[in-house]
Amino acid sequence: MKKVVIALGGNALQESGKPATAKAQLEVIRSTSTYIADIIEEGYQVSIAHGNGPQVGRIVLQNEAANHITPAMPFDVCGAMSQGMIGYHIQQALRDELKARKRNKPVVSLVTQVLVDQGDPAFYHPTKPIGPFYTKEEAERIKREKGYDMVEDAGRGFRRVVASPNPIKIVELDIVKNLVESDYIVVTVGGGGIPVIEKEDGKLYGAEAVIDKDLASERLAEDLDADILLILTAVDQVAINFGKPNQENLDHISVEEAYQYIGEGHFAQGSMLPKIKAAIKFAESKTGRQSIIASLSQGREALLGNSGTIIENIQNASCIAVL
Amino acid sequence: MKKVVIALGGNALQESGKPATAKAQLEVIRSTSTYIADIIEEGYQVSIAHGNGPQVGRIVLQNEAANHITPAMPFDVCGAMSQGMIGYHIQQALRDELKARKRNKPVVSLVTQVLVDQGDPAFYHPTKPIGPFYTKEEAERIKREKGYDMVEDAGRGFRRVVASPNPIKIVELDIVKNLVESDYIVVTVGGGGIPVIEKEDGKLYGAEAVIDKDLASERLAEDLDADILLILTAVDQVAINFGKPNQENLDHISVEEAYQYIGEGHFAQGSMLPKIKAAIKFAESKTGRQSIIASLSQGREALLGNSGTIIENIQNASCIAVL
Repeated sequence: MKKVVIALGGNALQESGKPATAKAQLEVIRSTSTYIADIIEEGYQVSIAHGNGPQVGRIVLQNEAANHITPAMPFDVCGAMSQGMIGYHIQQALRDELKARKRNKPVVSLVTQVLVDQGDPAFYHPTKPIGPFYTKEEAERIKREKGYDMVEDAGRGFRRVVASPNPIKIVELDIVKNLVESDYIVVTVGGGGIPVIEKEDGKLYGAEAVIDKDLASERLAEDLDADILLILTAVDQVAINFGKPNQENLDHISVEEAYQYIGEGHFAQGSMLPKIKAAIKFAESKTGRQSIIASLSQGREALLGNSGTIIENIQNASCIAVL
Repeated sequence: MKKVVIALGGNALQESGKPATAKAQLEVIRSTSTYIADIIEEGYQVSIAHGNGPQVGRIVLQNEAANHITPAMPFDVCGAMSQGMIGYHIQQALRDELKARKRNKPVVSLVTQVLVDQGDPAFYHPTKPIGPFYTKEEAERIKREKGYDMVEDAGRGFRRVVASPNPIKIVELDIVKNLVESDYIVVTVGGGGIPVIEKEDGKLYGAEAVIDKDLASERLAEDLDADILLILTAVDQVAINFGKPNQENLDHISVEEAYQYIGEGHFAQGSMLPKIKAAIKFAESKTGRQSIIASLSQGREALLGNSGTIIENIQNASCIAVL
């Protein structure tokens, strides 16, 4: 049975532009679950990672809005809350979908911490915007009072930025492995995992940071010795010259080609670029490993070779290339 | 190895009267973790259930306070968020404590749904107050607009009340069992679990209800075939005539005595009474099963017979009584 780690993007969890009610979110996740169930029915052993950007942003908003009546939680705790919220809906919807197909398979979400290095250079250059927008004056006051890094975000106002360090180790990895090997479906490293650092006292401390969810999914895929990292997003394929008259969709690229396209600036930061980087990292990590980037609704087709973009280390797959 | 389900009460998660900052909560949970680690070091196989009353109350508050900027989540989703929040701190603190004792043992929190019956009579008589206090006028408006049941709460204002149905089945039980049998430490049924009903379409739906955490712990203990249900709380022992000059602390009682004391009105509703009821239910469920009610710091001593109150089905333990 081939092992697949599925990385769910924002479009799998929420319809952009619609009010973020629980009902609307659950509806999107129910639809997402049909696509995941398609993959499970095809016989793949599936583990699920997911983003949490808009969701944790709203939790931060709620925490800030109520700070005069109850203390706002720090960002790591908000991340844990988002894992509970999103995980609950995924495990409920996917259980229902599998049951409807007479394939009862237990699904569970794990609260998951991911170790990052307190010396990670990302901590010196926070880049990831989180939470609400503020006016310049508010931003300056927050910076003064709380020491947060605040930056202007594309003319829409000022936002807090946090570091986006590299995932080193999934703290609960043994448990994830055990469950995957027992053929359960695990939802883990939600929102990239709750970032924690290990200090000299040997203890873990929540970090005010965001781990890129594609990189966390890649870490998970490597650690589970998965065959395929399947990154599901809003477009059918990776493209070069994206959005231009000469846009070219890609079926199958080598890691060398992927590096070249990155060098040529084809992929947008914070959007396709982190997906490509995670895909390369996984494809390079061991002979035979494949990364696939595809649209949410075409996940199954992509695994069957009929959609999406495969990123592969062709050097390792030379026998296939020769044939 | 004896299997113990530990039910953590409010005092294990938060110091009452102190501001509910993340730092303060984590501090209490770190201290709680030392008591749990004591029990693990004694050689018991431990699973952990916990309450969430004050925590989910604050999440509801935050949701209400920010409702003009982002939609408030329904109560089941708030419960899922509280499982993430509390579970994160427990698994982090307990991992640290075990590591410091050179007993590396993976700990994980599971988002856990608990099935309740949509025909449960509790749904017709909601009794469990949740969330913020309102004035009479606000309460009437909320009742009109949202259809919530609102009651006056001990002169402190009006609050929403929800049903407290019986736990029927832990949806993720197979996974909990698998992990416990693999000797991992699992945090589950947080806040009594997220209550869900199964409708005619076979799907699960979150219920706006609260499952009593002691009853959910009891359900868990039965389903795991545990030897001991250890309910940790703020008092050292169960007492009759509690708080009166003739208060009598109890070391060891039979379920018959427990029933009698309930009948005589010795135990306060919403406090000791649900603990006693859960303790009786577990002791009666199978020969040899023991329930123990003890104070948080005396958990280990209680298991060793030096503290707490044992509730036992003496009929089953008659050979011991004869000796």
